[in-house]
Amino acid sequence: MAILLAGVHAELLGITSVSGNAPLAATTRNALLVAQIADIDVSVHAGAARPMMIEPKHAGHVHGESGLDGPVLPELTRTVDSHDAVSFIIETVRSTDDVWLVPVGPMTNIALAIRQAPDIVDKVAGISFMGGSTGPGNVTAAAEFNIWADPHAARIVLSSGVPKIIMAGLNLTKQYVFGPELATRMLALGTSTGKFCGEVIGSYIDAATRLRASNEAHLHDPCAVLAITHPHLFETSRHHVDVSTGRVTVGMTVVDQRGYGGAEPNVDVLSTIDRAPAVEVLLDAIATYR
Amino acid sequence: MAILLAGVHAELLGITSVSGNAPLAATTRNALLVAQIADIDVSVHAGAARPMMIEPKHAGHVHGESGLDGPVLPELTRTVDSHDAVSFIIETVRSTDDVWLVPVGPMTNIALAIRQAPDIVDKVAGISFMGGSTGPGNVTAAAEFNIWADPHAARIVLSSGVPKIIMAGLNLTKQYVFGPELATRMLALGTSTGKFCGEVIGSYIDAATRLRASNEAHLHDPCAVLAITHPHLFETSRHHVDVSTGRVTVGMTVVDQRGYGGAEPNVDVLSTIDRAPAVEVLLDAIATYR
Amino acid sequence: MAILLAGVHAELLGITSVSGNAPLAATTRNALLVAQIADIDVSVHAGAARPMMIEPKHAGHVHGESGLDGPVLPELTRTVDSHDAVSFIIETVRSTDDVWLVPVGPMTNIALAIRQAPDIVDKVAGISFMGGSTGPGNVTAAAEFNIWADPHAARIVLSSGVPKIIMAGLNLTKQYVFGPELATRMLALGTSTGKFCGEVIGSYIDAATRLRASNEAHLHDPCAVLAITHPHLFETSRHHVDVSTGRVTVGMTVVDQRGYGGAEPNVDVLSTIDRAPAVEVLLDAIATYR
Amino acid sequence: MAILLAGVHAELLGITSVSGNAPLAATTRNALLVAQIADIDVSVHAGAARPMMIEPKHAGHVHGESGLDGPVLPELTRTVDSHDAVSFIIETVRSTDDVWLVPVGPMTNIALAIRQAPDIVDKVAGISFMGGSTGPGNVTAAAEFNIWADPHAARIVLSSGVPKIIMAGLNLTKQYVFGPELATRMLALGTSTGKFCGEVIGSYIDAATRLRASNEAHLHDPCAVLAITHPHLFETSRHHVDVSTGRVTVGMTVVDQRGYGGAEPNVDVLSTIDRAPAVEVLLDAIATYR
Repeated sequence: MAILLAGVHAELLGITSVSGNAPLAATTRNALLVAQIADIDVSVHAGAARPMMIEPKHAGHVHGESGLDGPVLPELTRTVDSHDAVSFIIETVRSTDDVWLVPVGPMTNIALAIRQAPDIVDKVAGISFMGGSTGPGNVTAAAEFNIWADPHAARIVLSSGVPKIIMAGLNLTKQYVFGPELATRMLALGTSTGKFCGEVIGSYIDAATRLRASNEAHLHDPCAVLAITHPHLFETSRHHVDVSTGRVTVGMTVVDQRGYGGAEPNVDVLSTIDRAPAVEVLLDAIATYR
Repeated sequence: MAILLAGVHAELLGITSVSGNAPLAATTRNALLVAQIADIDVSVHAGAARPMMIEPKHAGHVHGESGLDGPVLPELTRTVDSHDAVSFIIETVRSTDDVWLVPVGPMTNIALAIRQAPDIVDKVAGISFMGGSTGPGNVTAAAEFNIWADPHAARIVLSSGVPKIIMAGLNLTKQYVFGPELATRMLALGTSTGKFCGEVIGSYIDAATRLRASNEAHLHDPCAVLAITHPHLFETSRHHVDVSTGRVTVGMTVVDQRGYGGAEPNVDVLSTIDRAPAVEVLLDAIATYR
Repeated sequence: MAILLAGVHAELLGITSVSGNAPLAATTRNALLVAQIADIDVSVHAGAARPMMIEPKHAGHVHGESGLDGPVLPELTRTVDSHDAVSFIIETVRSTDDVWLVPVGPMTNIALAIRQAPDIVDKVAGISFMGGSTGPGNVTAAAEFNIWADPHAARIVLSSGVPKIIMAGLNLTKQYVFGPELATRMLALGTSTGKFCGEVIGSYIDAATRLRASNEAHLHDPCAVLAITHPHLFETSRHHVDVSTGRVTVGMTVVDQRGYGGAEPNVDVLSTIDRAPAVEVLLDAIATYR
Repeated sequence: MAILLAGVHAELLGITSVSGNAPLAATTRNALLVAQIADIDVSVHAGAARPMMIEPKHAGHVHGESGLDGPVLPELTRTVDSHDAVSFIIETVRSTDDVWLVPVGPMTNIALAIRQAPDIVDKVAGISFMGGSTGPGNVTAAAEFNIWADPHAARIVLSSGVPKIIMAGLNLTKQYVFGPELATRMLALGTSTGKFCGEVIGSYIDAATRLRASNEAHLHDPCAVLAITHPHLFETSRHHVDVSTGRVTVGMTVVDQRGYGGAEPNVDVLSTIDRAPAVEVLLDAIATYR
């Protein structure tokens, strides 16, 4: 749904996949499927098949083996434009002004791009990522999945010096709540894309029921897009954010919320989202697709 | 003030000092001074002069070099009963039923006692400690001072298997707020002890003004006593709590607040305090002293 | 055999047991058994049942479940003099001049004693320990068992400031080689103690055959005693030694052998032993017992 | 001198620079200068300006600010062929059979290439690196400079699954000793390249005199080339090698020399070099240049 939002409210320059909620082959296929279902003309580039330092970890218990459990998926007819997401990122940032990077999975591709081509740090417009938390995590007591799945990459990105970094952490994205009625509204659009989205949200609600006895799903990833395209819907505070790579708290975004002492702020941490209009923005965007 | 509370509402079996906000010599002297000012008949035992593994760290920027800046202190006439707090703890727990340990500094003495005499784990009534946080820290973005100053000791205590452990963390103690009017009420008691307490709180308010532009002090330590003597003033939730010893988050109490997954709960984490009556309990206790 | 040596060539003030090659109950029983077999009049004090921070680890694959596989052991008739090795160490060092501590297992008891009673650092004559290595380890590529089994304790002891610390590491103790002919000579003594020692060495040789296809056993522990009682049999070089507690190399003694840079030397690292006379010293000592 | 050797005894496909003994700008310039002085027709590609995770570290105390102190250097007339060493490595390995990578500095470029294009792991002929040690380090008690300067990169490369990895560690390269007479022989060649090499070795001997009171320099880097071009000059043993990233031993190559237990061997560790003929190979190679 982050892709669908960006397809309407931004100029979508390309999609890069990464090993994350599911293995690379699955996340790449899922990116291609979304573009195919919604008929979005965008290049897709397969990226890192594993994290920088640690072993690959996935989230099959939430998103299923496929990374996209729920909808009946069509046969895939599209193919990737390259297997080199890192080069695609470097070249796109170098050749185009005002490029935003919006990682909604582990930041491995971007970290590799920054280490290989540090000039992109000053060239990119900003990075808006879904990941981390100002409070409790999900995959561990302290860590959110995307950061935990490649903490070294997250540390490289957050300490890179990119002037504008926006964090859509769990503290924010858990406010972007979708109940069964919104799944129903999507299905009622009568389009392929609406059906697909409604079924995905239905699957998330099933997982929420199973894992935390709730019938409301959180749509994490669209928040990272909305923070750029609809910034008026958010409140933000600026903090220093580091990433733990040590025992117990590995993958935690350590957000310095004290207001005294500590290092220079480097991240705009989203704190609230105006949920009702933000939901309508997403529904409206989905309604524009076939 | 934790000592003064315990002197009224509990049978105070002894005081053990430890290297913490100030070096051992200062914290030992301060314990003796409080007992002397309030004329409390209690033994004082000097304990660990340094943490288990890391180098000693103090908090002179908050509590002054003395660890008790603010009041004009009388000449010390009392002396310590021993320099062996660890043996005192072991012997007291072994010989007495229903002993609560209430560490309001680093838990070095108790950790050493547990490692030397593991039988006390099943014998002690419980441990109620001031330290840690369910959210941001104070001395770093993630860590509260008492845990950070000896994270290995805290980990030993929290993983010891003591059946009843209560955590009065920053999240709780920051609700126990004292403004200038309460300092004034203490001074107005007209007693030595009231004067002493009023001046200490005045000094805390000065530090609060200096460090975070607030004229309200938090009385952290009494909360750990009140949690035992006046449990009806608190709400509590039970969580697994571990202590980070890794980079960035060293000394953080990692409180698993997710409600799913994770290890067995081992700590009763205080979440709210009924401030107004809790303030009166402390004032009434102080009023009983000379 | 370290005990037997010390019983002849030193004034043996007491034996403290610790969780090490075998659990505490077994190592305590083994200490009592040795004293009983050789009829040595010495107090035995049970110590730490587990390491400071990490979980207990034993070496059953080398020494058997009992920690003393090999000989047929008599029924135990002796009992421990206390369960408080830490207090015994503190009191003995405080009350007696020229006390050497000779840990031939994890240094947990001594580390706890140093933290509880730091005055013993300046009072003790020295510490001669079996553990560590200037080269490869045994239990991992980098670590020797005794240090690896409680690396935090080892770090506390090595950084304690005790002026005289002697390291009998694997690099040294692997030179103290005993083949089958020496086991035979011990058995031929015709004494209970000789029989016991011969059978123990026979068992070590069996383990050596099984684990590294050698018919020669290394007698590690006596070296730590001999280094004090027969220093002329050794060559020594003085180095800074730290202990790793990090991943991969946990429990490694990091011996700075560069000869330039680095921290102040704190340990006399034994480098060579004059094997032939050192073997005779041990055989002669064993021959003095019943 | 590794470059000069490769220019004679191998087909030198390209040189990639990296932040190492000196900052990237200096190591890049030095690579260009060597090619210019010896008139070698080879492309030079600037690579990583910093390590993967840690902050950049250099070795100015040994090699001077320039990374090439000693000789009077000519004005640089050559320029780099690209600033993208990582892409050069990926493309070269993909397009050419039997490519050996010979990192004689930190392995940052190769680690980034492996993470971006994991297919090169199975395509490359092998990696022969100068770095690490089976015994003491140089920059710390445990670590050799090249590994210590980017331990994360080294771990990525060593655990990559590249089937053939050769380690020319300090234990080996310290056997490749050059005294003043060899510097004199190089100067006596009467060529620009001979003069350059003689002066470089003279500078190394000066550093050796200053740092460890020796008048013999070790030529570390040529060994990594010779191990491929003249394998008969070496003895090798195969071990598992990991890289420590933890405290105290960070950057250590942990070579499992036990011969039992442990993980599968992944590195051919060079153990001896036949010094005399190996010296002549280098001198003969240098003599072929202008």
